[in-house]
Amino acid sequence: MKYRMNLSYDGTLYSGWAVQPNSTSIQELIQKALQTVLRKETPIVGSGRTDAGVHAKLQVAHFSYSKPIDLSSLRYSLNGILPRDIRVHEILPVEDDFHARFSVKKKIYHYHLSTAQDPFTYRYSHYIHSPLDLDLLNKSLPHLIGTHDFSAFASSHCGSKNPVKTLYRLEAIPQNGGFRLEYEGNGFLYKMVRNITGTLIEIATHKRPVEELPKILASKDRKQAGQTAPPHALFLYRVEY
Amino acid sequence: MKYRMNLSYDGTLYSGWAVQPNSTSIQELIQKALQTVLRKETPIVGSGRTDAGVHAKLQVAHFSYSKPIDLSSLRYSLNGILPRDIRVHEILPVEDDFHARFSVKKKIYHYHLSTAQDPFTYRYSHYIHSPLDLDLLNKSLPHLIGTHDFSAFASSHCGSKNPVKTLYRLEAIPQNGGFRLEYEGNGFLYKMVRNITGTLIEIATHKRPVEELPKILASKDRKQAGQTAPPHALFLYRVEY
Repeated sequence: MKYRMNLSYDGTLYSGWAVQPNSTSIQELIQKALQTVLRKETPIVGSGRTDAGVHAKLQVAHFSYSKPIDLSSLRYSLNGILPRDIRVHEILPVEDDFHARFSVKKKIYHYHLSTAQDPFTYRYSHYIHSPLDLDLLNKSLPHLIGTHDFSAFASSHCGSKNPVKTLYRLEAIPQNGGFRLEYEGNGFLYKMVRNITGTLIEIATHKRPVEELPKILASKDRKQAGQTAPPHALFLYRVEY
Repeated sequence: MKYRMNLSYDGTLYSGWAVQPNSTSIQELIQKALQTVLRKETPIVGSGRTDAGVHAKLQVAHFSYSKPIDLSSLRYSLNGILPRDIRVHEILPVEDDFHARFSVKKKIYHYHLSTAQDPFTYRYSHYIHSPLDLDLLNKSLPHLIGTHDFSAFASSHCGSKNPVKTLYRLEAIPQNGGFRLEYEGNGFLYKMVRNITGTLIEIATHKRPVEELPKILASKDRKQAGQTAPPHALFLYRVEY
């Protein structure tokens, strides 16, 4: 039987989603908790990796298990074992052809930018000291929406074979103390959201003209784009299948 | 000259507002930062104490200083010295008769209760595992609104001479993953908000009938009321003068 887990986590203290030697990952903690409860090594497959420090409002993973499970009590036990910054919200039976990574239709990421300092949001928001020109930002977004080769915004370790992705939606939504960038697309290259965000910040703070954006995209050269924005303000917000 | 500071802080890591031996308080850190910038020992007076672990969305303090000050650069310097979980939002000149504590007209506290586990709110919300009966809760609130002797809800260390306080407003406001109790009054006894909240939780989880509330108030006996709710979910929300 195959099962889907809906999870959320605060990534502050972890080395990211994926298991890595000599560091604590979210995937590893969940696998260990599953092994404790099910008494069997149980690998899980996530919808994709999130980097060290990146959060997930909703991450999806799947695992297989041969015997029947009481899913509500499994969820309860896992949440008892896991630290409070990782929570399992639902475990659901799924068809055998469901794959947390390969069946993804759409992903939504949010990146939080704040223009005011706040003790309650600084862990989850990137504070920009210079004033942000929202007009410039809003002029930039249409250049990125649509189907493009996003190589210029992919970090060099990107393992994706196809750099052409479709960004269905990219919006700047005002919120208390700043705004968030909402990215909705069919797939994202490694660090693509943070690299685009960093470039948009340079434009919105008058360090780079809007007109450079199409040139950056066309160059397919990471060196043409801006700095990578920090991880602590990025949320994997939703995964759709 | 007298100055008013508007502050906010995440109380998680501190021993509370007030200076205490052998522990780090918010007042102490602000006083030390003021001394560093103004090169003079500068005591501050807050609108009232907050306990260890309690937060402030808005705390008000005053201090006196004999020479003219560039207030915007003072604020900037203080925020550079202070940890990021304590922020000075404004420093304003005030009349000599302004007193952060004695001039208070109204205080608003929020207490956050959550009925769902969430990695992003558990530091700031009290998670209640049992279902909460909102009807019972809403039936309880009118018993507490108004002018009462709140001795039954005051912890024994309470230094207030007058246990009669007026609660102008007490509401349960639904919010994502639970709700918050909003307390608005002319003054609060030591741990009064947390003691009332703990009692309300016992009522809303069917551990105690609503009808006990007037009896608890009339008894003026702390032992009749419920458990003190934990500090990490309490926010001093606003102080009015």
